[in-house]
Amino acid sequence: MAKDKKVEQITDMDVDFAQWFTDIVTKAELVDYSGVKGLYILRPYGFALWENIQAFLDKKFKELGHENVSMPMLIPESLLQKEKDHVEGFAPECAWVTVGGSEELTERLCVRPTSETLFCDHWSHVVHSWRDLPKLYNQWCSVMRWEKTTRPFLRGREFLWQEGHTLHATAEEAEAETKQMLEVYADCCENFLAMPVIRGRKTDKEKFAGAVDTYTVECMMHDHKALQSGTSHYFGDGFAKAFDISFSNKENKLSYPHQTSWGMSTRIIGGIIMTHGDNSGLVLPPRVAPIQLVVIPIAAHKPGVTEKARELAELLKNAGIRVKTDESDNSPGWKFAEYEMKGVPIRLEVGPKDIENSQCVLVRRDSGEKLAVSFDSLADTALRLLDDIHDGMFAKALKNLQENTHVAHSLEEAKAIQQEKGGFVKTMWCGDLDCEMKMKDEAGMSSRCRPYNQEQLDDHCAICGKKAKEMVIWGVAY
Amino acid sequence: MAKDKKVEQITDMDVDFAQWFTDIVTKAELVDYSGVKGLYILRPYGFALWENIQAFLDKKFKELGHENVSMPMLIPESLLQKEKDHVEGFAPECAWVTVGGSEELTERLCVRPTSETLFCDHWSHVVHSWRDLPKLYNQWCSVMRWEKTTRPFLRGREFLWQEGHTLHATAEEAEAETKQMLEVYADCCENFLAMPVIRGRKTDKEKFAGAVDTYTVECMMHDHKALQSGTSHYFGDGFAKAFDISFSNKENKLSYPHQTSWGMSTRIIGGIIMTHGDNSGLVLPPRVAPIQLVVIPIAAHKPGVTEKARELAELLKNAGIRVKTDESDNSPGWKFAEYEMKGVPIRLEVGPKDIENSQCVLVRRDSGEKLAVSFDSLADTALRLLDDIHDGMFAKALKNLQENTHVAHSLEEAKAIQQEKGGFVKTMWCGDLDCEMKMKDEAGMSSRCRPYNQEQLDDHCAICGKKAKEMVIWGVAY
Repeated sequence: MAKDKKVEQITDMDVDFAQWFTDIVTKAELVDYSGVKGLYILRPYGFALWENIQAFLDKKFKELGHENVSMPMLIPESLLQKEKDHVEGFAPECAWVTVGGSEELTERLCVRPTSETLFCDHWSHVVHSWRDLPKLYNQWCSVMRWEKTTRPFLRGREFLWQEGHTLHATAEEAEAETKQMLEVYADCCENFLAMPVIRGRKTDKEKFAGAVDTYTVECMMHDHKALQSGTSHYFGDGFAKAFDISFSNKENKLSYPHQTSWGMSTRIIGGIIMTHGDNSGLVLPPRVAPIQLVVIPIAAHKPGVTEKARELAELLKNAGIRVKTDESDNSPGWKFAEYEMKGVPIRLEVGPKDIENSQCVLVRRDSGEKLAVSFDSLADTALRLLDDIHDGMFAKALKNLQENTHVAHSLEEAKAIQQEKGGFVKTMWCGDLDCEMKMKDEAGMSSRCRPYNQEQLDDHCAICGKKAKEMVIWGVAY
Repeated sequence: MAKDKKVEQITDMDVDFAQWFTDIVTKAELVDYSGVKGLYILRPYGFALWENIQAFLDKKFKELGHENVSMPMLIPESLLQKEKDHVEGFAPECAWVTVGGSEELTERLCVRPTSETLFCDHWSHVVHSWRDLPKLYNQWCSVMRWEKTTRPFLRGREFLWQEGHTLHATAEEAEAETKQMLEVYADCCENFLAMPVIRGRKTDKEKFAGAVDTYTVECMMHDHKALQSGTSHYFGDGFAKAFDISFSNKENKLSYPHQTSWGMSTRIIGGIIMTHGDNSGLVLPPRVAPIQLVVIPIAAHKPGVTEKARELAELLKNAGIRVKTDESDNSPGWKFAEYEMKGVPIRLEVGPKDIENSQCVLVRRDSGEKLAVSFDSLADTALRLLDDIHDGMFAKALKNLQENTHVAHSLEEAKAIQQEKGGFVKTMWCGDLDCEMKMKDEAGMSSRCRPYNQEQLDDHCAICGKKAKEMVIWGVAY
């Protein structure tokens, strides 16, 4: 039996969560490092995860009337500067092309950190009448932000994402779009990735550069830190005015359109890892898993085993399950560990004894539970099991979120909770930046959002004691 | 009746083919110009064409065992320089990032013009054993080449493409891959885009920088110029040696793997336009058309017309046809011209008279032919018609290719043909670069390829009279 690969140990997640994460992204073959800091190679298994997320989102976007486009990768510096808040937010972390061929460029060009300015410039050419609205656009691309500290998936100088950009005749329509797209992200997180979310609005401090309002879905990771998983921005008509996009409305009067943008990135793959993974490696939610079930023949040299393994794989493929059969000459034990590392939701074992009994064994990656299943009921059982695993993973993540979200009535209490237990802290807030800064400086937590589901915990702001405006969820974020 | 858009005239293709092309790309709303020369915006209709080509190719690639990955956008200068021929070919037209955030970079980074160097660097990390081979990778991305003269689709400083990169244990396997992928491109051109191809190998002068052999599919445009539509390169083990990629083979000896790459780009959309378009605008091959059939209600204010139009559209959608119904208040005449400009293969007209007779009218975009079709047989007829249109468009393009490919027995004859008629010229060739240069300098034609289908036109080279090695097809190329 050949064993020229060995399954390597990963760091214990409860000893060093950051190293555990790094171990998983490399040992599950999701990512390789390139020669440039913060630029990563998505290997086939990592990219397949992104392709499945793309397929899920792209279908939803199109069902809601959006069309895909492709914008240039480079933005002239003068164009980036047209909207004041926006350029202040992004210019410090731009990468700049200054030479083309053998010539110095007369104006330097930034590699897009986001594409609002490009969409606006285009719309200023093509939008004239109410008949040209709405514009419901999306693009799949990579963007570049020259960050100082970088980590695979979580903070890359280049990362893949989708950016939706829409333009509407009225504020109401644009606001409805902003909220609608947040629901698409919530749906993706909860029903596709088994990641429960908190929906809410960002504070002014935390909103997107140039936005009137930023909506967010926030998830809690295994280590109780927050991951901002998708955001949707309402811009009002600020960009339209800065870029001179106007249209004649139905009453033939000149108006400025209202705008949104919304994005989800490969960051969410970091979220999948940190929500569901364990000390044996990745644990993939079944609906996004590139391989949903791996068939492992036991004692494959015995007559009939390989044939039966292939037959069962075929049967499961025909039921719509993404199946891989591993017929390599590695040992079953090696294979078990390998597909555990890769987080494949179900392992199917079939050997001579099983065949005698017209059954095989299914093993759940999430719980380790084993089921003997007759060949007759295999497809039905496997399909049901994939749904059960999704539900189980969602329930476990929800429990983590609920058990690690605490209420505080004062800054002192918030600090104590953060120091002793970590997790999310809910408090009332007066709405002042000063109090938000104090929570950051003293308790180390940023405001994650002002959640849709408001509770009246107190009448006063937990930080300053003034009259409270609303409830905020605070946390330490990736 | 509102008419705030008007259908604009385009330049006559026989008067000024270049301007006709430019008119089409803008008036059919495929492209908009950005603020940077040579960087284009693919609008929804243009990008939908690319998405359909992507879907066709991606499916084929995966059926043949390829996996998608994502490589970084930037290449360190030192990495680009590792393979001598490759860097000579690409360095002069690179765009360079020299500043990240507020800092000058210590090494400048080029925006990828192609990614061989990145794939090789990655493989040098992960390939060790024959068990790690083959690697069959592909990526969808944009690349940048800082060209002096630019045109939408045909020559952009940035363009979208796919680049396949594979690594094999043996030369034979890599050569078979190179040829196999050329067949995928030929299949795409001929059976999806109705563009007949000539398959062949490039001369050394025309091959890809760093390749041992470049295979190509060449198409003839309406103006009899050539468009290189897809290329597939065999690299031998040159890159593997330059990047120190080695593996222990089954006999446990250290070997260098053999490599290929292959690409098709948005250039092919320029090819679709220039192969099939006419003086009314685009003519889209049905299989790639974003809208295959447009339903236009006639006298839509009359009772029952809109309902019937929607009913027929639904019926056709259920038959698997991509249908749009235009219920706008523009006039039917305006709509006819608009969808002719956009090259929609079939127009369906339905009005009160038609409804009385339980029929509608189908109009072919390619030939203008009209058919009255009963509602009962509509779906079957429309499906058959889409195939007929594809076949008709292919036959017309093949006729153009055949009628404008000429034989020459001497340089003088080749020159005369090029001056008087244009088109492709077939001659025998000795294999010398000098003769190839002479054909370029004196007849203005480059070698398009050494076609698979060789003919023994003469025993001697048409240019120098020495013993001929093979037949070459010459032409003026985009």
